[in-house]
Amino acid sequence: MRNIKLIIEYDGTAYAGWQVQPNGLSIQEVVEGALERMLGEPARLRSSGRTDAGVHARGMVACFNTDKTLPLRAFREGLNTMLPDDIAVRDAAEVPLAFNPRFDASCKHYRYTILQDPLRSPLARGVAWRLAGPLDLDAMRAACAELVGEHDFAAFQAAGCAAKTTVRIINSLELKEHGRFIYLDVNGTGFLRNMVRIMAGTLVEVGRGRRTPADVARLLRDGDRQISGITAPPHGLCLMEVFYPPEVL
Amino acid sequence: MRNIKLIIEYDGTAYAGWQVQPNGLSIQEVVEGALERMLGEPARLRSSGRTDAGVHARGMVACFNTDKTLPLRAFREGLNTMLPDDIAVRDAAEVPLAFNPRFDASCKHYRYTILQDPLRSPLARGVAWRLAGPLDLDAMRAACAELVGEHDFAAFQAAGCAAKTTVRIINSLELKEHGRFIYLDVNGTGFLRNMVRIMAGTLVEVGRGRRTPADVARLLRDGDRQISGITAPPHGLCLMEVFYPPEVL
Repeated sequence: MRNIKLIIEYDGTAYAGWQVQPNGLSIQEVVEGALERMLGEPARLRSSGRTDAGVHARGMVACFNTDKTLPLRAFREGLNTMLPDDIAVRDAAEVPLAFNPRFDASCKHYRYTILQDPLRSPLARGVAWRLAGPLDLDAMRAACAELVGEHDFAAFQAAGCAAKTTVRIINSLELKEHGRFIYLDVNGTGFLRNMVRIMAGTLVEVGRGRRTPADVARLLRDGDRQISGITAPPHGLCLMEVFYPPEVL
Repeated sequence: MRNIKLIIEYDGTAYAGWQVQPNGLSIQEVVEGALERMLGEPARLRSSGRTDAGVHARGMVACFNTDKTLPLRAFREGLNTMLPDDIAVRDAAEVPLAFNPRFDASCKHYRYTILQDPLRSPLARGVAWRLAGPLDLDAMRAACAELVGEHDFAAFQAAGCAAKTTVRIINSLELKEHGRFIYLDVNGTGFLRNMVRIMAGTLVEVGRGRRTPADVARLLRDGDRQISGITAPPHGLCLMEVFYPPEVL
């Protein structure tokens, strides 16, 4: 039995999210379908985690088991010919059978992209949250600093999320300007449901002067989702990379 | 009578090109339709030029005449609410009646985007020509230098193009690296049909070592389209900006 680890990039616009679900086509379903046609046997992917409807990925990690002796090349070049334009395998590697893409992950890098623009931009429409007004980037950077470290992120999770603990570690959260675009690059050991999007929404409220960096610190202390910021829309979010300690690979 | 100048951005993926034509939906047609609904009268756009099917624009310039006294704001914010996601008005200004967006243009800036990547990249699929192999960028830069200046670009026009003269002036042609992307930024006083795409295709052949910069100089001298490079695909091309002398505006 082999354990094959895929790195998958996708434009999530047309999908109901990564995970197989009844209410729409999922990326997982499409990749499993292509694998089944290629292998001639059912394939079940285990992933590093879910992404919501409309969220993109540059580096989703997903594994499957097979006894077939196809070369790894087949799972890159070959599988790509069987996938639609908006999904591609970026790498394939054989990993130990014990490797678990979800529980072995040491941290993840997400990027949330904001477009500062008073008018719609068709060429950026699928990958950035457009905001018309100016943002106070210094205040946003100060608020980013409050979020870095080990905190109880209870105020930064989707309502109804049933995580056992809401303590997570944010290793870094950087705001980068790139022309009309602002990137929020966040690296953390784990994320609650919608956590990055609620962080982005809250940071934008700081940028608009509706909250202060000190308010963000208070949100972490009080842990009340009712008073944290809006959830930023999914199309600005991209799972960039999942990191693993070398000993598990 | 007023003459209103619009700056239009579009993702050309879904369109048969800028200009109204029988074999598919054009961007011009969509914008004219929205204008007609807004004005309650027929609207005819005169543009700075055409773009081919699949080509994008950040700064297409198009004018229309009207007697309606609507404020310019209506042609920005208002018109945008009547346009699809992949087309947007970026600016509107009133210009002299004599202003002609095509004949008054002093120069245009096009960008051709190449993605150097051995595998498909779903998130870049609509806006870059993906090339698997490495490119010799120094050789490409040397070939760019050959193309700058006033030349007979007869070898760099679509077969069957019936321009009166094939002499054009390229003010600048720069190759810029940006991560996995290569931008070919070309500024010129005028362009023949498919000229930027044939230039991009020829430059890529130089990058692959199939031609030399001296071959490009020879193409300009000999003017034979039969021996110039391939036409790069439309989705890598974007009309960035059209420039006008201040006295015509």
